[in-house]
Amino acid sequence: MITIEQLITRIEQRQPIINKADISAEQLRHPFNSVGSLTTADQKQLSFLADPHYISSLSGSQAGAVLVTQAYRDQVPESALALVVSDPYLAYASASQLFARQSLSAGIHPSAVISDSAVIGDEVNIGPFCVIGDYVQIGARSSLDAHVVIEAHSEIGTDSVIKSQVVIGHDCVIGNYARLHVGASIGAEGFGFAPTNNPSVSGWERIAQLGRVIIGDHVRIGSHTCVDRGAIDDTVIGNHVIIDNLVQVAHNVRIGDGTAIASQTGIAGSTTIGKRCIIGGAVGITGHIEITDDVVLSGMTMVTKSIKTAGSYSSGTAAMPTANWRRAAVRFRQLGRD
Amino acid sequence: MITIEQLITRIEQRQPIINKADISAEQLRHPFNSVGSLTTADQKQLSFLADPHYISSLSGSQAGAVLVTQAYRDQVPESALALVVSDPYLAYASASQLFARQSLSAGIHPSAVISDSAVIGDEVNIGPFCVIGDYVQIGARSSLDAHVVIEAHSEIGTDSVIKSQVVIGHDCVIGNYARLHVGASIGAEGFGFAPTNNPSVSGWERIAQLGRVIIGDHVRIGSHTCVDRGAIDDTVIGNHVIIDNLVQVAHNVRIGDGTAIASQTGIAGSTTIGKRCIIGGAVGITGHIEITDDVVLSGMTMVTKSIKTAGSYSSGTAAMPTANWRRAAVRFRQLGRD
Amino acid sequence: MITIEQLITRIEQRQPIINKADISAEQLRHPFNSVGSLTTADQKQLSFLADPHYISSLSGSQAGAVLVTQAYRDQVPESALALVVSDPYLAYASASQLFARQSLSAGIHPSAVISDSAVIGDEVNIGPFCVIGDYVQIGARSSLDAHVVIEAHSEIGTDSVIKSQVVIGHDCVIGNYARLHVGASIGAEGFGFAPTNNPSVSGWERIAQLGRVIIGDHVRIGSHTCVDRGAIDDTVIGNHVIIDNLVQVAHNVRIGDGTAIASQTGIAGSTTIGKRCIIGGAVGITGHIEITDDVVLSGMTMVTKSIKTAGSYSSGTAAMPTANWRRAAVRFRQLGRD
Repeated sequence: MITIEQLITRIEQRQPIINKADISAEQLRHPFNSVGSLTTADQKQLSFLADPHYISSLSGSQAGAVLVTQAYRDQVPESALALVVSDPYLAYASASQLFARQSLSAGIHPSAVISDSAVIGDEVNIGPFCVIGDYVQIGARSSLDAHVVIEAHSEIGTDSVIKSQVVIGHDCVIGNYARLHVGASIGAEGFGFAPTNNPSVSGWERIAQLGRVIIGDHVRIGSHTCVDRGAIDDTVIGNHVIIDNLVQVAHNVRIGDGTAIASQTGIAGSTTIGKRCIIGGAVGITGHIEITDDVVLSGMTMVTKSIKTAGSYSSGTAAMPTANWRRAAVRFRQLGRD
Repeated sequence: MITIEQLITRIEQRQPIINKADISAEQLRHPFNSVGSLTTADQKQLSFLADPHYISSLSGSQAGAVLVTQAYRDQVPESALALVVSDPYLAYASASQLFARQSLSAGIHPSAVISDSAVIGDEVNIGPFCVIGDYVQIGARSSLDAHVVIEAHSEIGTDSVIKSQVVIGHDCVIGNYARLHVGASIGAEGFGFAPTNNPSVSGWERIAQLGRVIIGDHVRIGSHTCVDRGAIDDTVIGNHVIIDNLVQVAHNVRIGDGTAIASQTGIAGSTTIGKRCIIGGAVGITGHIEITDDVVLSGMTMVTKSIKTAGSYSSGTAAMPTANWRRAAVRFRQLGRD
Repeated sequence: MITIEQLITRIEQRQPIINKADISAEQLRHPFNSVGSLTTADQKQLSFLADPHYISSLSGSQAGAVLVTQAYRDQVPESALALVVSDPYLAYASASQLFARQSLSAGIHPSAVISDSAVIGDEVNIGPFCVIGDYVQIGARSSLDAHVVIEAHSEIGTDSVIKSQVVIGHDCVIGNYARLHVGASIGAEGFGFAPTNNPSVSGWERIAQLGRVIIGDHVRIGSHTCVDRGAIDDTVIGNHVIIDNLVQVAHNVRIGDGTAIASQTGIAGSTTIGKRCIIGGAVGITGHIEITDDVVLSGMTMVTKSIKTAGSYSSGTAAMPTANWRRAAVRFRQLGRD
């Protein structure tokens, strides 16, 4: 159980509780076990009004406490404690972390295979069947679940969470407070080949990928996302970058601080993405281009050229009944005639 | 070897063999070792005519038996036994399962790490290096291959097949007769973050994902498909849902009974998909919308709004020679001028 | 450290060094530790001029040696040894491999679970926690990192590199000189189901996938790429095929020799791709069609019909400011009216 006092302490790491002085000592001890929506939360759950669309659900809410802005404070029902903040959604995010179940591992599991030359920090957890290579460094309080592989000479910062079956290739650097989800592949070999130009061979000569992956602090990488190592120079992900599942980050890509990337987006080799970009799902970005800071790309956008001006960009066409679509697609094709 | 008698028993779980009375005791003992197409099957293989397009291959087939509808019964060659059913493709599907190789595991491998508090049903197989967390329940006759991770408090039903390297997060529920393929990630943390709105921090506050993933009976999840856990409420997949490889099912998505989803499709957070939908490959569906029952989406369709009427929908444009495409794309761009 | 002599030997496996006779015995002993770009390489690094765009960086380069064509030989600075070849990019590729870090494993790790009936060739490495099934064959000098699973009756050729957490299903055949990257799934069950056509059941009958995956020599498969086994016949990948990360190759697909496929492309069931095709990222190719030899598909192309003529094909529309895109998309929709 978490008390209001603990919730307040966590929320105030980000923003003040405006009405803190009005909360009684008894209210501070009220126990909570989870977060709930306005319509489903009970007395042991914290709720929030982040979007005024849901205002009609506020007065009837059974939640034990509700995070609201000053404007809606008076509409919180008497059964709930109002917690007034300037950004209730952010406060909900902060509070939610107190209710999360802890990780699988505790301590170093005896089945893990850890090189004698690896340097493991204090209070590190390493789960069953992990494999830690030569000269690997893992910072204090970091936690690895099961079947994690960290190849030789890689460094993980402090306070990082690495879920099961993440693989980190050799010589990579991961910052502090990382969260790497199930099966993320960091530092696998980039897709680099030279054509042999020899009809009798009909093959490709592999280009060994000699660069690394360098990841900043507070970075989140989703399940089965692939971040390949650079060919000569490194693939670089800045601080506070958040990446969803099944994303492809090719060799020598650079991603600026604070950028968010939704699921199934692909970024081809040597492209640079600016800071604070918001990239929707299944976006495709070609190689060797630059996207400037503060660009928003809607889902499924196809980016074939550099984007030099901040703003929102889109492409494609949206679903329509198939019979109509067939006609439209034929007419699009006709647009391509000489 | 499988006899006709065994094949008939399995097929009749779904539909009657119309001419069963005409099959002799000797024919019932005919041994089969596999399924083959009409043109390649030999005397020890079962074949089928599901699509009348292939009728020209029927008379010359060397198969030992052929599944056909009544209409084509007379065209089955004398060397083959005709098995008459109303749906030969369904009968082939039923029969095919008798020829499948059995799973990797048998019994509980001594290397598996299984919590003392886990409850393991009768005749369960658990392969090498699996990790089973506290209070996990696994129903009778379920089978886990190698390197499967099931985090604490999750439940797996009976008769389920879980292939190598599947990871199931804590507190999830998987029904009976599930088939989870290599590397499927069920119940990883959803992609939920609140912007800090603080230029000096330039970061994101993580929203702990406190919901679960709840999966019904007879569900199939493909390789490396990701089904993320809900933020507050659960992510829910109904009964008889079949999902291909590399699909993204974001947090709080709900998928109705009997829906099929092809590879690389992505469904963004909090979207609801109806029953009996057929969703092609690489479809992108935005978040917070509803797709009603019996919707068909062709491959690569971009869905940006709710679909309230059953039927077939499409989007995009199909491949054309690049020179023509360049002109068409320029003209599409011109359509966007004021 | 690698000497010029060693580099020359490796490069000449593909093409002659035109000025080899001019290189002194002292120069042949010059030690190198890596490859660098013209602007960053130092005296212990090899560089190259592959694209004349970078000619301005040549005269000031600090590299110890530079790969160039005859045309640029005279512009190599005196501090660098010129290595003259007809294809400097190919020569760089060849040379790069000498600088790559070796694999995780050495020998057979005692934790690996290897069936007594498996046949393991000479000098094979098998890393921690690998699982090798009954009657598996692994050719000489092949190397498996950690957590690799090879199911019963599969064969791996010689000189192959299989990175951590690759899973190879039963009865598959992988050729010589394969490179399978982290988490690749080879031979999982294809997505084949027959509708039950029974409203009271509302389900799907699984079609057991009885075919195999057959992969030729010199094939590269990227991280988390899925190559499913065939339904009746096999899924077949030719020689010298290179495939990037997160690609879907469905059951019974056939891919011709020398074809390259970039990340996140999906190829639906029973489609045949020709030889020497270049397929961009996130391309979608429908099932049961044929793409002829020497076809180039740009990124995100949607292929709905067979392509019978070699050449370059594209589809889709490129990113534009969202306000303009909205108008263009509305007008596209209007094209679909009767």
